[in-house]
Amino acid sequence: MARSALSGPGGREQGGETYTLDSRPGREPDMSADPQQAPTALTDDELRTLDAHWRAANYLSVGQIYLMGNPLLTEPLSPEHVKPRLLGHWGTSPGLNLVHTHLNRVIKARGQDALCIWGPGHGGPAVLANSWLEGSYSETYPDVSRDAAGMDRLFRQFSFPGGVPSHVAPETPGSIHEGGELGYSLAHAYGAALDNPDLLVACVIGDGEAETGPLAASWHSNKFLDPVHDGAVLPILHLNGYKIANPTVLSRIPEHELDELLRGYGHSPIHVTGDDPMTVHRAMAAAMDDALDRIGFLQRSAREDGVSERSHWPVIVLRTPKGWTGPAEVDGLPVEGTWRSHQVPLSAVRDNPEHLRQLEAWLRSYKPRELFDEHGRPREQVLACVPEGARRLGSTPHANGGLLLRELPLPPLDRYAVPVDKPGATLHEPTRVLSDLLEHVMHATHGRRDFRIVGPDETASNRLQAVFDASGKAWQAQTLPVDEHLDRHGRVMEILSEHTCQGWLEGYLLTGRHGLFSCYEAFVHIVDSMVNQHIKWLRVTRRLPWRAPIASLNYLLTSHVWRQDHNGFSHQDPGFIDHVLNKSPEVVRVYLPPDANTLLSVADHVLRSRDYVNVVVAGKQPCFDWLSMEQAKVHCARGAGIWDWAGTENGEREPDVVLACAGDVPTQEVLAAAQLLRVHLPELSVRVVNVVDLARLLPAEEHPHGMPDAEYDALFTRDKQVIFAYHGYPWLIHRLAYRRAGHHNLHVRGYKEIGTTTTPFDMIVRNDLDRYRLVMDVIDRVPGLAVRAAVLRQRMEDTRLRHHAWIREYGTDLPEVADWTWDG
Amino acid sequence: MARSALSGPGGREQGGETYTLDSRPGREPDMSADPQQAPTALTDDELRTLDAHWRAANYLSVGQIYLMGNPLLTEPLSPEHVKPRLLGHWGTSPGLNLVHTHLNRVIKARGQDALCIWGPGHGGPAVLANSWLEGSYSETYPDVSRDAAGMDRLFRQFSFPGGVPSHVAPETPGSIHEGGELGYSLAHAYGAALDNPDLLVACVIGDGEAETGPLAASWHSNKFLDPVHDGAVLPILHLNGYKIANPTVLSRIPEHELDELLRGYGHSPIHVTGDDPMTVHRAMAAAMDDALDRIGFLQRSAREDGVSERSHWPVIVLRTPKGWTGPAEVDGLPVEGTWRSHQVPLSAVRDNPEHLRQLEAWLRSYKPRELFDEHGRPREQVLACVPEGARRLGSTPHANGGLLLRELPLPPLDRYAVPVDKPGATLHEPTRVLSDLLEHVMHATHGRRDFRIVGPDETASNRLQAVFDASGKAWQAQTLPVDEHLDRHGRVMEILSEHTCQGWLEGYLLTGRHGLFSCYEAFVHIVDSMVNQHIKWLRVTRRLPWRAPIASLNYLLTSHVWRQDHNGFSHQDPGFIDHVLNKSPEVVRVYLPPDANTLLSVADHVLRSRDYVNVVVAGKQPCFDWLSMEQAKVHCARGAGIWDWAGTENGEREPDVVLACAGDVPTQEVLAAAQLLRVHLPELSVRVVNVVDLARLLPAEEHPHGMPDAEYDALFTRDKQVIFAYHGYPWLIHRLAYRRAGHHNLHVRGYKEIGTTTTPFDMIVRNDLDRYRLVMDVIDRVPGLAVRAAVLRQRMEDTRLRHHAWIREYGTDLPEVADWTWDG
Repeated sequence: MARSALSGPGGREQGGETYTLDSRPGREPDMSADPQQAPTALTDDELRTLDAHWRAANYLSVGQIYLMGNPLLTEPLSPEHVKPRLLGHWGTSPGLNLVHTHLNRVIKARGQDALCIWGPGHGGPAVLANSWLEGSYSETYPDVSRDAAGMDRLFRQFSFPGGVPSHVAPETPGSIHEGGELGYSLAHAYGAALDNPDLLVACVIGDGEAETGPLAASWHSNKFLDPVHDGAVLPILHLNGYKIANPTVLSRIPEHELDELLRGYGHSPIHVTGDDPMTVHRAMAAAMDDALDRIGFLQRSAREDGVSERSHWPVIVLRTPKGWTGPAEVDGLPVEGTWRSHQVPLSAVRDNPEHLRQLEAWLRSYKPRELFDEHGRPREQVLACVPEGARRLGSTPHANGGLLLRELPLPPLDRYAVPVDKPGATLHEPTRVLSDLLEHVMHATHGRRDFRIVGPDETASNRLQAVFDASGKAWQAQTLPVDEHLDRHGRVMEILSEHTCQGWLEGYLLTGRHGLFSCYEAFVHIVDSMVNQHIKWLRVTRRLPWRAPIASLNYLLTSHVWRQDHNGFSHQDPGFIDHVLNKSPEVVRVYLPPDANTLLSVADHVLRSRDYVNVVVAGKQPCFDWLSMEQAKVHCARGAGIWDWAGTENGEREPDVVLACAGDVPTQEVLAAAQLLRVHLPELSVRVVNVVDLARLLPAEEHPHGMPDAEYDALFTRDKQVIFAYHGYPWLIHRLAYRRAGHHNLHVRGYKEIGTTTTPFDMIVRNDLDRYRLVMDVIDRVPGLAVRAAVLRQRMEDTRLRHHAWIREYGTDLPEVADWTWDG
Repeated sequence: MARSALSGPGGREQGGETYTLDSRPGREPDMSADPQQAPTALTDDELRTLDAHWRAANYLSVGQIYLMGNPLLTEPLSPEHVKPRLLGHWGTSPGLNLVHTHLNRVIKARGQDALCIWGPGHGGPAVLANSWLEGSYSETYPDVSRDAAGMDRLFRQFSFPGGVPSHVAPETPGSIHEGGELGYSLAHAYGAALDNPDLLVACVIGDGEAETGPLAASWHSNKFLDPVHDGAVLPILHLNGYKIANPTVLSRIPEHELDELLRGYGHSPIHVTGDDPMTVHRAMAAAMDDALDRIGFLQRSAREDGVSERSHWPVIVLRTPKGWTGPAEVDGLPVEGTWRSHQVPLSAVRDNPEHLRQLEAWLRSYKPRELFDEHGRPREQVLACVPEGARRLGSTPHANGGLLLRELPLPPLDRYAVPVDKPGATLHEPTRVLSDLLEHVMHATHGRRDFRIVGPDETASNRLQAVFDASGKAWQAQTLPVDEHLDRHGRVMEILSEHTCQGWLEGYLLTGRHGLFSCYEAFVHIVDSMVNQHIKWLRVTRRLPWRAPIASLNYLLTSHVWRQDHNGFSHQDPGFIDHVLNKSPEVVRVYLPPDANTLLSVADHVLRSRDYVNVVVAGKQPCFDWLSMEQAKVHCARGAGIWDWAGTENGEREPDVVLACAGDVPTQEVLAAAQLLRVHLPELSVRVVNVVDLARLLPAEEHPHGMPDAEYDALFTRDKQVIFAYHGYPWLIHRLAYRRAGHHNLHVRGYKEIGTTTTPFDMIVRNDLDRYRLVMDVIDRVPGLAVRAAVLRQRMEDTRLRHHAWIREYGTDLPEVADWTWDG
């Protein structure tokens, strides 16, 4: 390879653009330094220890991908030492090993608490190798000891049946970030750094990942990082030049353009470029010292000198070859430094003697005897750079956040409850009521700083603005006198990127804190794929005894499908519920509180819970209060129950029909329908069932919250007609309840994709979820009613038609709808 | 407001950073010009006509939000003229009106074909106003005539029951971009510009939208735009400073930092800043001319002079107040220039006389009598800047792409079919077989350039590399000798951003071309929210007679859930099928071809189809060939059918059990199970049913492809046990079939969220989808077998246990699994 060995002003296209802080007048002082001119004073010995550590990690990375025997190469490599199926990714591993080695050095030298997010998750072998070298791995998994037997296990288990995944994963000590799906590393890093003032969060970003939208957006997180209360994030953009089969965009634009991009993101770039190991070690050590010096300076400026101007944090741009130190050529084609080293540079090694020979030469090129003693233990020189105890990247408690988690100070709910003497006599905006509770939590965590609310610019729109009495909105960019609630130290975080919100919150929770994500219901689909990964993460961690439980990821979905008067069809989608219910039942929970007090009870529950993803759907519009706080607690604990005050059954026989509901709007329509039936068909015995916790509909063997059949039958009967008004896509209820008795009597009304410009009630009518349609359903379904109630049925139909004409004329709902009240 | 009226070197923080092209040696010539020094030679008359057009558009925007009578203010405004419910967004509208006015001018002056993407979709009133002014609206909707009666309708219908949505929407002439969910404007713009060399695609990006991930990623699209064969994209970043309730990030970083960001994205920024209309008009006209001159220069350089260096296209940064020209203050609080003008600056106008007075003053401030004659027709001066015919932004055929669509040249399938004399005798990689067909299509569209393949760096990984024989990969950034298939004029597009891929393809299809998105199955969830919006768009356009059908959006999902040997749990998610099946049945189609020839047949069908979203799931791993091309065509046309050669029924009576399957891996397992049953329980009458088109399982009244009950019963029987092996989450099959007879006899095996490190077959075993488990299911379910086949059942169980131990020892599947063949 013929690259310039080291980046420095002399060897670069645009002199003076890097190794300098932004030195415009009035900004940070000029701390420019050319590490080639004034390198970190590494002795040759130190350099050799760093290289030994790096070589050891590289050796162990290759070993994991290839070997299932002969781990120390004590005998010549033969086919049976090689795994029959070669799985894993070599390409990014040497770069990650380099970063880990140099992080070790500065952590140890400076006594720095640090966490690293490994964005190129395909580099599983690298992170596992380092964790084993530093001893963290064997402490977590004693059967994988730090000796020859353990090395053999380390190798064999990698991407092997019954072993560990090939990516950085929950099983990996020191990790809070699953590799695989790319794009979330930097947002995770920021989430981890928030409210951890002493923590350095390094974040390796692959140049493939850098092309994703979520990653591109998350660079601007630096406008939300408080240098006083938060720790530092050190992005390390690793340009190894290739993805699976293509060059990467950022590696193929001129360096001055990349610098402009990074400066435009608000960072000061530091470049390290090369392919000669010793030169790169020296440059990388200098860059790390430079970066940490700058970070220290910026933090001291903010903390000690009260500087309030936004900090321009350093970023390291590391340009080293993909698959560095691997086979230069295989079968006549270049491999090192190209996309061909992305996965397994040498394939079919068992059957190809030349490949076997190359593999052995490759492994021996790291000189394993220099690195490991005859028992397979890493030699002293290899471990010289490794920090001690919890400072080790594989042992930091921040990567096992449950260890650091404290109970959230939640107040007695009664203090925030709305008084309900009788059902339906008053109206409240549920999210506004919740807002007062959240204000308390925000206030009570003022000193501890372990609770945050995130959202895409919707906290106020979602009526949660009371929280601003306890905390402003995090903001480090320019402010103007007209601004409200912006606060350099705020713990409400708003950016118009659901991805960034989700990433921040995940990082925050995974490092042992609490939070809430408030989002428009329709647009939470933007993070479908992210929540997939988080649920998978929780699914796996629940089986790892060494992983302490973390606070649940709580969604408050509001501005929901039924109230899109402003926004219409494009803002209507209740399918996030369906999405999460496909996932591991032990992790996912869905709640549909029908009023303000039930929302309080649900919120209290989810904020106390651990290791779940809780989806809470609640309206922000005025909504009738149905239950007192006492009733709400009981109802929510039960998850689904009969509202006897709303029905007409007398307890002597089973009801004639069950009206079931889940969601605030469906509940209102079911109650209005029940009222119509009570007035017009007083002899009909009607039961009203409300479902708060959707998983209760599942069989007990399918979900921890699932009801036993006997309980389901007691609620819904085994053979009566059930008309179910549901918040979302109607077939979800069938998917949950298809195994139940009497499933053929279950008729679900819900949302269908037919939105257009309407009033709120017309939206309900068009989806056949309205009170009149529900009454007609009862008449159509309950045996014997069709003839007897034909007149009532026609009146219902007429009202719907009148409504249709009325709204087109006046633009508002029929007065009898708009002014409806419950007269129970 | 006290802002600097106009951006120019004198008034800016960093002199000389804007109004200049990147003038480094060897790059484009210095075309720097300060429009204040050397403004476009606009006469005062021209300036006044532009301002008149802008004021008219502003007037019409306000009128739509507020009025339902007295549209020309011929009488004093009274409460009954005002809508009872005030819905819509004013804040962004004046800025969009400014852009539209100035686009009109340059389109007319230069005879430029243009399309505009309105990113701030909340600016529905603005785009509707402009479309009405230029006459496009009345030509599309004759009842909304360009006179007082039409103006009254235009106002009343806006966000009113039975009317039009408040966002830019499918109903809006000239639009290919739904407003509402933000982030996709720039990718849509690039998609529209591809292979449209004479087209200018302007793209207004709101500063709120600019915070999203998808938007942030899509700036790099310029590395994929071919200046020879593609048109130009002119991004106009509109910094009005606020989102719903917060300032925007990009409006609160220093201008020099924003410039660095935009230059880092590869653009040359041109700034227009101000709040004095006349000054801004002059500056905007100069900026537009400057931008179009630069674009023309870059295009000529590439097309005539053969310059192959990547172009640095202009971007306009437009900084004007949010809610500009609206009420400066309301109830004592500043509104113009703040987030308070986001939606409706004056609320409750009917009940608040002061607000009513302010509204009237606001409307009259535009001097409607100068703008409209006594019949409500726009005066000549207002229309002076408006272009003619199809040059009008509301009338361009590019925004009604179906008008431009040509049939795709698809070859006879037999040419690409794999020969199948008997089922299961040969193996092929289905996507590789498809690749040859796609290569033909790519080749046949070489001159027409109306077919593209997009994907996140996975075309080769997904075995589609044959297409590279017909077209390389689009790439304008640096190339190195080691690169393969990169091509400045290529039509395969790979960037590691599913969002950008999806946005490009949507823009390409909506402007009348064809394409295919090849993606890993798990990660297509990244675009869940985007496909929602595209499906909604198609749902609406199918009801608009003036919208011509466009080519379907076709997904090829491969590297699917059952073959994640490399990647494991993080790469397993078959839920995209569930996601799209929640959407409008008239739009969505899902296909699970079980082998190579069925994939060919499905691909041929979806590439010919219109106005659908087709999801095709197919493997890239070697797969048995089951059907000949002739059989495949018939089977795919039927969508689901009995494979009599695989079963043992003799036609004299109903089978004892039905083994059903959908998906390539489930099909293989069902056939292996059928083979085991044939050998070990020869007297059992087994039917094998394969489902290709998943919607066939739905009732006929629920989906256009749904089967009538009689047909379903004929396939699956009314009362026999049905063991269904399904590709994805098993409950999806129940959700589709719950209304069918014998639903309680339907037992589905599929994927559950329990992934771990395994071999391919172990993954199948762990999900109970394997042949042995299916045989056990038959024994457990079919009456009378439990005792008779107890020995067989135990053998099945034993094999599964042996398998478990074997893979942990050897890392590969049991030989009897790995070497299994169909011996039908």
